[in-house]
Amino acid sequence: MRPTGNADQARDDAILARIRFVLVETSLSGNIGAVARAMKNMGLARLALVRPRPGASGFADAEALARASGADDLLQAATVHDTLPEALAGCRLVLGSSARLRSLEWPVLDPAAGAARLVAEATHGDVALVLGRERTGLSNDELALCHFLVQIPTNPDFSSLNIAAAAQVFAYEVRCHLPGAAALADPRLADSRPDLATAEEMDGFHDHLMRTLIGIGYADAEQCATLSRRLRRLFHRARPDRTELNILRGVLAKMALRSGGAD
Amino acid sequence: MRPTGNADQARDDAILARIRFVLVETSLSGNIGAVARAMKNMGLARLALVRPRPGASGFADAEALARASGADDLLQAATVHDTLPEALAGCRLVLGSSARLRSLEWPVLDPAAGAARLVAEATHGDVALVLGRERTGLSNDELALCHFLVQIPTNPDFSSLNIAAAAQVFAYEVRCHLPGAAALADPRLADSRPDLATAEEMDGFHDHLMRTLIGIGYADAEQCATLSRRLRRLFHRARPDRTELNILRGVLAKMALRSGGAD
Repeated sequence: MRPTGNADQARDDAILARIRFVLVETSLSGNIGAVARAMKNMGLARLALVRPRPGASGFADAEALARASGADDLLQAATVHDTLPEALAGCRLVLGSSARLRSLEWPVLDPAAGAARLVAEATHGDVALVLGRERTGLSNDELALCHFLVQIPTNPDFSSLNIAAAAQVFAYEVRCHLPGAAALADPRLADSRPDLATAEEMDGFHDHLMRTLIGIGYADAEQCATLSRRLRRLFHRARPDRTELNILRGVLAKMALRSGGAD
Repeated sequence: MRPTGNADQARDDAILARIRFVLVETSLSGNIGAVARAMKNMGLARLALVRPRPGASGFADAEALARASGADDLLQAATVHDTLPEALAGCRLVLGSSARLRSLEWPVLDPAAGAARLVAEATHGDVALVLGRERTGLSNDELALCHFLVQIPTNPDFSSLNIAAAAQVFAYEVRCHLPGAAALADPRLADSRPDLATAEEMDGFHDHLMRTLIGIGYADAEQCATLSRRLRRLFHRARPDRTELNILRGVLAKMALRSGGAD
């Protein structure tokens, strides 16, 4: 359909290879298979599963293979993780799919804008789209790991998409936004700084931050979940690079030292 | 989700009510159910079936109902037809979904352009999208009944979408092209939080921050211009609201107190 040359194709393939779809506690193996098919139809290949309900060894069952309809390779190559942060390791941008507006405090993108960002940032490093449980979606703690929510516009009276249908819409929009596709990604949407902190570096920073706030007596260990989420959102919006993260951690270390608390 | 008025909503509903999806000789009742769900998710309601393989009375079986997941009303209201022309009665515009380029003689649209035409013409009368058989698509005689083909861009090595996944992409694009959706995209990219910190509040915070960093011995008063600029950039990207700024200033106050420095 699109007359791209080999160079365009290679660039598109490199981008697709840096985009992972992460499924959290998916209940039905058939849905996992259908997501794999939807991804492969659009040229995506990296599937990560967090605590799949059919089990780490049982998700590629007959139903999954039937719905995958030839995307068996994606199921076989899928990585399985105990935690969402583990599945997001190395990602510089994380989008979370949300069926409804959870809170005004998370920035929300439509699928086209979300795909544009995924594609634009995938030229610089790994990025992820997170899809939650079939019935209950993502928890607030999981959403706190996302830079943006992406929301598919729906009929307000019947708004819950099948997870594979949602994956299909996002994967389709990703393909539409590849540089080789007719619709060009808007470079202004990309954060092109080369050394953005990764998901696990941000996790390490947040652990350090909360330990320090408890250590200096600002926060109470029992009651800091809300504060922690709030600060995660704040620093996610800032998208620190490594140098900035080092400055912040240096400040925390100094703070702990001066207050005499253990770091 | 989108703040449209009643007039916008009524106009969108009138358009959606004039768009029918026509399935030709669909083999699996589960796929018919999944198409119904995809349509209802996007506000579409008119489903027409041409010679469904499970039979005119048997397509709404347990598998169809499971995959419809609450879109039973669309299955119950679906019309069943012996021929495609009968199913297309009254339609002024007919688009045919095609997995591959069948012939240069048919004009081909991408899903966005196809949806734009469906929506635009639905303000004047009935329109249809035709989806072919799971394995073999539409015959040349059936394609001849279509004004345009619509083709979803795919991975050329794995191009066959599940029929419900294709229906989901088309229904999503239809919803994106409703007149009431135009108001949706741009404002959501803007930060609509009502209580973002003002420039002077940010200035006050930065003064406080730098004083504290000097006070605890992290920064040197003579040489902190670069650090100050760097931290300004970081917190500007985060765009704190007033509550967040108060949290940060609370942390600074606690830090100064614990380190015994003057605030």
